[in-house]
Order: sequence, then structure tokens, then C-alpha cells
Amino acid sequence: MEGYPFSTEVKVRFAETDAQGIAHHASFLVWFEVARVEYLERYAGGYQSIRDRGLEALTTEVHVRYLRAAYFDERLTVWARCVDVRGARFRYEYRITREGELVADGHSLHATVERGTYRPTRVPDWLVEAVSTEPKEE
Amino acid sequence: MEGYPFSTEVKVRFAETDAQGIAHHASFLVWFEVARVEYLERYAGGYQSIRDRGLEALTTEVHVRYLRAAYFDERLTVWARCVDVRGARFRYEYRITREGELVADGHSLHATVERGTYRPTRVPDWLVEAVSTEPKEE
Amino acid sequence: MEGYPFSTEVKVRFAETDAQGIAHHASFLVWFEVARVEYLERYAGGYQSIRDRGLEALTTEVHVRYLRAAYFDERLTVWARCVDVRGARFRYEYRITREGELVADGHSLHATVERGTYRPTRVPDWLVEAVSTEPKEE
Amino acid sequence: MEGYPFSTEVKVRFAETDAQGIAHHASFLVWFEVARVEYLERYAGGYQSIRDRGLEALTTEVHVRYLRAAYFDERLTVWARCVDVRGARFRYEYRITREGELVADGHSLHATVERGTYRPTRVPDWLVEAVSTEPKEE
Repeated sequence: MEGYPFSTEVKVRFAETDAQGIAHHASFLVWFEVARVEYLERYAGGYQSIRDRGLEALTTEVHVRYLRAAYFDERLTVWARCVDVRGARFRYEYRITREGELVADGHSLHATVERGTYRPTRVPDWLVEAVSTEPKEE
Repeated sequence: MEGYPFSTEVKVRFAETDAQGIAHHASFLVWFEVARVEYLERYAGGYQSIRDRGLEALTTEVHVRYLRAAYFDERLTVWARCVDVRGARFRYEYRITREGELVADGHSLHATVERGTYRPTRVPDWLVEAVSTEPKEE
Repeated sequence: MEGYPFSTEVKVRFAETDAQGIAHHASFLVWFEVARVEYLERYAGGYQSIRDRGLEALTTEVHVRYLRAAYFDERLTVWARCVDVRGARFRYEYRITREGELVADGHSLHATVERGTYRPTRVPDWLVEAVSTEPKEE
Repeated sequence: MEGYPFSTEVKVRFAETDAQGIAHHASFLVWFEVARVEYLERYAGGYQSIRDRGLEALTTEVHVRYLRAAYFDERLTVWARCVDVRGARFRYEYRITREGELVADGHSLHATVERGTYRPTRVPDWLVEAVSTEPKEE
């Protein structure tokens, strides 16, 4: 997808559906997170490597627009990109598609903190470089 | 809380925490939903009564700002109000507090559809009147 | 309920239902856990007080029999008792009822470990005394 | 694994961990279910095809033994086999391993019912033949 160099796949689990017969709306946040984790694995050595360096990334904001219902056992593509890395904050943007059709989109904001103290700490340069989508598109 | 005539309580479950030692950010959507259900129980005879009349309310958008972490076993107050009921759409706004301190806020948008067909259908007058927060504040 | 001096209430959340229109079977484990936490709050100063003393209780086994489906918004009673506290292990037994009708039953086994090292450690006497259901029935 | 002709992979999601820093014990039921769904996809045309024929498979019992903790981002193998298909009931057995090491095992029992009425109905012959592990091992 244009502007989204990264994507991963999820399959709607039965446990993720609700009595409306569709994927529960909170499941989409979990899929966004799965995409962030895969993204970090590809570009920054994995989220665990960030935790191993004494950092934790907190989620400070999420926004989702649900355009179409998602159903049990469907295979969805979760597109993600990391933009606006500055100071202790960074932003992810997402699109979820099913066979090319847009199912949902959204974004999340994150803050880097020290593990243990939860004090905000600047996103280290190596991580800025690793996760920032735009430089990689040059 | 000013402007919020309704609130309910949740206690952070162990299953709702994550390896950061805090409540997982997706749990807040579930708490918003718990508040909507309690809200409908108080003002509109319960969500089940809406389903029994052949309607379903889909979630079309959510937004959450996380201001403070919430921890296992904490008792949180979820404030909710229903605003902007028009056509087939309505909007809820939320604040989550812990002993008076703001932990998170957000909103969600919903669309009323026919059960079975998922066709958008006007929010019935009885429901507009029941859920709309502003008239009740007169 | 005979033999069960303790119970707590849960209400089936919409997020806990699945596309079969009933509460997902994994939700029952969460309700068992909610009951354990409430149980410890009543008899042992809360699970957090156990964690504060450097202990963690791991779940080493669970068993559930589902006798009837549970539906959205139903109020269920979760009965729990702690039996067989010995060494580093203890066992909980559960019954879930809806208006007196048995919906599910089960048990779980737990092991006390040191926080951090996860080394098995004897259940301390104060906790044995606090949680053991049988002595309290005398 | 001997006696287990089928396996699938899951990766521990961050949302599946809890404040003990390990995968929450209820997550294992979801992974068992993921394995059943993949199993049915391989051998019986998918769970949705069963639902499309007017059947639903209810979970009537689960049992899990947790032998080792599972951690965020670990890749686990879920082994599953379907045994004892008789009348309206069937049984799955599971093993979860991490690089050959046993992390958990368990079983679940299921009952076939008619969608809508929830009346028990004999597991159809085509499904018995499709899911039964033992014949396929000949």
C-alpha cells in the first residue's frame, strides 16, 4: 500500500469475535500492537531488545475508525508505519485491509520511558533511525 | 463530574494487566463498553432490550488518551455521557478517574443497524430520548 | 452454597461473548481469577499484599466443566473455596451459578514462588491460615 | 511429536501477557482454540464450513497443566489431535512446546449442536472421518 512499506497478517480468532458475530472492536488494538511488534522485529531488533536496553514504550493515545466489520477466520493485512519520532514520543499509523478493501484505519502515540522508573526518556538515535519509516523510503 | 451525570466502577482485573505491570491499553475499550451497557441499563432498559427490538449498535470509531497508568486491583470510575444523537449515529464521551485524578479520556461513535441485515437504521425516538444526556440535565 | 463460604458476582461483558452468542469459554478462567482475588481480599489482605511480601502465586493447572451457556449481561455468582494448602501448593474449587442453577464448575492449582527468581517457596503460615477454607468453617 | 500428526505455531502477543511478566493462563485456551480451527481447516474444510452446515461445536470441558511459563514474543508450537469422536461428542488433546520443551498440555471436550436451537446432534459421519486423528495415522 502506498506510503506503507510494512505489513503483517492476522487471522481473526474465534475468541476475538463477539455476540454481534463480528470481531470485537477492542481486538483491533491488539492487531495494531501485533503489527508494531513485527515492525520492531524487522527494523529494530525486536521490542524485547528495546526492553533489554532498559526502555519501555507506553501507549499514550489510540484512535481507530471501523469502516467494515471483520469476521471469524478472515485473513487481514495490517499495514503500519512509524512517523513523527521526536523527543520521547513517536506515532504509528495503521490501515487494515481484507483483499484490498479497507476495513479500518487508525493511529497510536507512544512515549519512551525508563523501565522501572517510568521516567520519560528521549527515543535513542539508533531507535529513531531504525523505526522511522520515511528515511527508509529514500 | 461536571457534565457527566453517569458513572460506573470497574476494578482492574489481573487478566487485564500486561508485562509492563499496568492495565493493557485495550482494556480501556472494554471498560468504556461496560459503562455504555450500564448507561443503557439505567436510561434505556438495557442493551439487550435494544437487541430484542431488532437493533444492534455498531462501534464505528474510538479514541482514547492515556494520561496515567492504571494498576492491578485499582478501583476506577468510568464516567460516560451520550451526545450528538442524530440519524443513525450517536457519540459517547468518557473520562476514567482514580480517586478524582484523571487516568484517561476518550470518545466512541456508534451506528444503529438492523440485526441480521446490518442496514443502517435511524436511532428510534424512544432511544434518542432515553440515552441523550443533555435533555436529562434540564 | 454448601461447602462454599465465599462468593462474588460478575456480569457477563459484551467483550466476553463470542460469535456463538454466548460467553467465550476462556472468560470463565478470568471469572475464577476475579473470585480468587476477591477471596484473598476478604481473607488475606489482598493479592497485592502477597506480592508486596515478595511472593507470586502461579497457576499450574485449571479444569472447567461447562454445563450451561452463559449469555451477555447475565449476572453470575462465582463460588470459591481454597483447599489442600500444603508446601508450596494450594488448590481452589469453584462453582458458577445463575439464579441457583449450576452453569459451570472447576478447580485450579497454584504454586507459591519468590517474585523475581520464580523459585518455589512454602506457602507462609499466615497465608495458609488466611486462605484455608476448612479451618474457618469450624 | 509422537502421536500428534498436527501442529500450528503461535507467537505470544504482548496483550496476552500479565503483570507476572508471563503469558496469562487464560491465553492457553485461546491457543488451543486456534489449533482446533487450523486443524479443522486442514482436515474438514474449516470451522466455518461446519457452521455453514447448521452445526456449532460447544466447548463442554477444558483442562490445562502449566509446566513452564511462556514469555512475550516466544514462538510456541501447539500440537493437537482429535480423539474419541462418538455420538455428539469429541475430545481434543494438546501439547504446547517451545523448542522441543513441554510448556503445557491439556484436553478439551466438545459437543455438536444445531445452530439456533442448541440441540445436541450426532457428529456427522463426514466430520467424524475428517477430524478423527487415529484413522489418519494408519
